[in-house]
Amino acid sequence: MPDRDNYLRAHNTRHQFHPMIHPMISADAPPQIITGSEGCYVTDIDGNRLVDGLGGLWNVNVGHNRAEVKQAIVEQMDRISYYSSFAGTATPPSIELSAKICEMAAEEEITKVMFSANGSDAVETALKLARQYWQLEGKPTRTKFLSLKQGYHGVHFGGLSVNGAPYYRNAYEPLLGGCFQVDSPWTYRNPYSEDPEELADAVITQIDRLIQAQGPETVAAFIAEPVQGAGGVIVPPESFWPKLREVLDRYEVLLIADEVVTGFGRSGALFGARGWGVKPDMMCFAKGISSGYVPLGATALNKRVADAWYRGFSPEGIIMHGYTSTGHPVGCAAALACLDIVEREDLPGNAAKMGKRLLDGLTPLAESCSIIGEVRGKGLMVGLDFVSDKKSRTPMDPGKGIVERIASFAREEGAIVRPAGSVIILSPPLVIEEPEIDIIVEALTRACARYDAEQ
Amino acid sequence: MPDRDNYLRAHNTRHQFHPMIHPMISADAPPQIITGSEGCYVTDIDGNRLVDGLGGLWNVNVGHNRAEVKQAIVEQMDRISYYSSFAGTATPPSIELSAKICEMAAEEEITKVMFSANGSDAVETALKLARQYWQLEGKPTRTKFLSLKQGYHGVHFGGLSVNGAPYYRNAYEPLLGGCFQVDSPWTYRNPYSEDPEELADAVITQIDRLIQAQGPETVAAFIAEPVQGAGGVIVPPESFWPKLREVLDRYEVLLIADEVVTGFGRSGALFGARGWGVKPDMMCFAKGISSGYVPLGATALNKRVADAWYRGFSPEGIIMHGYTSTGHPVGCAAALACLDIVEREDLPGNAAKMGKRLLDGLTPLAESCSIIGEVRGKGLMVGLDFVSDKKSRTPMDPGKGIVERIASFAREEGAIVRPAGSVIILSPPLVIEEPEIDIIVEALTRACARYDAEQ
Repeated sequence: MPDRDNYLRAHNTRHQFHPMIHPMISADAPPQIITGSEGCYVTDIDGNRLVDGLGGLWNVNVGHNRAEVKQAIVEQMDRISYYSSFAGTATPPSIELSAKICEMAAEEEITKVMFSANGSDAVETALKLARQYWQLEGKPTRTKFLSLKQGYHGVHFGGLSVNGAPYYRNAYEPLLGGCFQVDSPWTYRNPYSEDPEELADAVITQIDRLIQAQGPETVAAFIAEPVQGAGGVIVPPESFWPKLREVLDRYEVLLIADEVVTGFGRSGALFGARGWGVKPDMMCFAKGISSGYVPLGATALNKRVADAWYRGFSPEGIIMHGYTSTGHPVGCAAALACLDIVEREDLPGNAAKMGKRLLDGLTPLAESCSIIGEVRGKGLMVGLDFVSDKKSRTPMDPGKGIVERIASFAREEGAIVRPAGSVIILSPPLVIEEPEIDIIVEALTRACARYDAEQ
Repeated sequence: MPDRDNYLRAHNTRHQFHPMIHPMISADAPPQIITGSEGCYVTDIDGNRLVDGLGGLWNVNVGHNRAEVKQAIVEQMDRISYYSSFAGTATPPSIELSAKICEMAAEEEITKVMFSANGSDAVETALKLARQYWQLEGKPTRTKFLSLKQGYHGVHFGGLSVNGAPYYRNAYEPLLGGCFQVDSPWTYRNPYSEDPEELADAVITQIDRLIQAQGPETVAAFIAEPVQGAGGVIVPPESFWPKLREVLDRYEVLLIADEVVTGFGRSGALFGARGWGVKPDMMCFAKGISSGYVPLGATALNKRVADAWYRGFSPEGIIMHGYTSTGHPVGCAAALACLDIVEREDLPGNAAKMGKRLLDGLTPLAESCSIIGEVRGKGLMVGLDFVSDKKSRTPMDPGKGIVERIASFAREEGAIVRPAGSVIILSPPLVIEEPEIDIIVEALTRACARYDAEQ
């Protein structure tokens, strides 16, 4: 369709604001137009076939263009494409999917699920239900939220308020009061200790002191990603999550695991928190739950939290929350097909195995490339940390465009990778196999070599 | 499928929180399970075929199970079901849909669109971009938001903060500071005047005084629905929106039209604000944009607002906002098919015509039914206002369950209608024709007669 292609090229950014970029930049260097897909590959408008090193946006876990998922969508559409889950109505797929999630998260004692359309929604739902939980518990002063620096919890005003990085917040302040961030347990960059366990203890001490300083009776919940994603793929020390659970239990603070990226396999365990041996009170899901085929989010509540709503009727317990898309039948049908694949093909297991191959393949770059300070990751979340100085570990200034340049080289070498600040992030589909892992590794290795050769 | 049906009945509310209801109530009286659909009809699990008087949730404007929309979805899925619109990438349907919206809203000088997945997202996007706009304009103190009582702008923390009704906020406070609500120009219930124009002036005076009291240099935007929806279908006096535009212009305050319900035809004009002859600075869309087939939201910016981003690059202008689902190719493809139907079948025109028939048909109930105080509406948004006393116009206490009882009678008579507090809301598909309008009117007339006969 050459006419349509010309139209698309001409209108690319003319009428649209794209996320995470300045509109003038996207007008100058218009976004690549992705037109086709199959498995771990996507095709752009120029006919280039590329390994999708991002898996969409950490979300196309079952791979692109899967017949099973499309069939589930078509079958549901032939019955009913939309009905609400408000008050007096529901559609079958939301009933089945909520049961499926509770079954998969039985170990975490998850008993209730509330649906939405995005990870940002899943976070907003968790924050709101956490406050409502404390009202029902007779402790309405527990309204504050704690989180980690470098944490990313979406872009609604609630999520913004608990996000750890100022660049998500600055243009949109003032935000919610009563939200506080402590240092991330980030082994590569912290002022406390090179030793992971000492570092974990230092951060836990900060949390303990913060809760005490605020007054435990004012703190509703702590929200964190089991492996920090958009902040730059930050893997905490092994003991951090168990110790986090412990300190929060000491003060009865709820633990919300933001599993939007890690949920359903990406970190090499079915859930990120399960990978650390920890049971959160609430879990936020999106992305991998429906592999992006249809927007879907979900907030899961464990028995402790959910039971607060079943001690008797009170007007305070009415869930005055929910979206037009809550329980969307097509989204839920797509998710059921995706979670079936997650289990049938053991995607958490494959993520662990392929993630190791990816990490092992890229780790030599921390030595060989002049501007990579660290290669880190867990499962199929891998980050290359670019620095202007390896000794001081000073992050590469994103304004210089060097990380984008490397990403663009990698694309020329056959793989899409994501520049995010001073880090290149990899999050390919969880169905990826050796040949595509190796293409990503080779593409980035060549991209770095090209950069160094230019200097 | 009797086995599946039994499973669905047994698990209905076991694992799911439903919006706008107490979990114990939904456990006691489980939501009706809607399994099939066609045009203006849906079918429940018991095989009842009902006129969908809600149009899903004000959103299935083109009607259920339309072959054109399903085909557009399937064709897009066969190319690519998901790729992000972040920074360096886009998919064709988001390019085409953004152009289409700007073409449809050319009269309003809309030049840019930012996509999301829900109406709540579209609001959050508008509030955030309004603040960023003022930063780019060199007026960073303009951060406050004004809105109307009875206004409904979704359930994220930003939307909650500008919502006009306390019952959406109470369980989830504290919210954003700097958000203020003034009285709605509600002819049926206000302490100012029975005369619509006097009432409009009284509310405009409130707005004027509020802006002055806060200081115009601190106010970012005023957000309002052209016809208030969830607050109970409140139609403002004819002159209100033009006067609102005028007072906001006096203080350079942005006008955000929340067109989530009214957008693309429901109020009898293509846009609700256009129906009042007013051009907003930003418009929030969702619901009718994709008729619920796939979740989609959009925030549209007029030239005045959008141009702020094109005066030169600055880090403050980077759009640090966006969702995994922003520009979702399947959602945008579905929306393109839906908007094509909106134009081809003149759904705004049909909404005006059928809305009049619906309103005329139901208006006699304000006389004949002992507990209906007013029947009001515009286009295919109609509300029956239930009162405990017609003279004092005291709203029926929702706790009594009377409105729910009438709605349940109406269902037995063949039409789904929505009880919301003390109002029954009607918002059928915009493709509805005379026979189905008449079924809704007869069902409600019989339901009211049954109630009165019981007394």
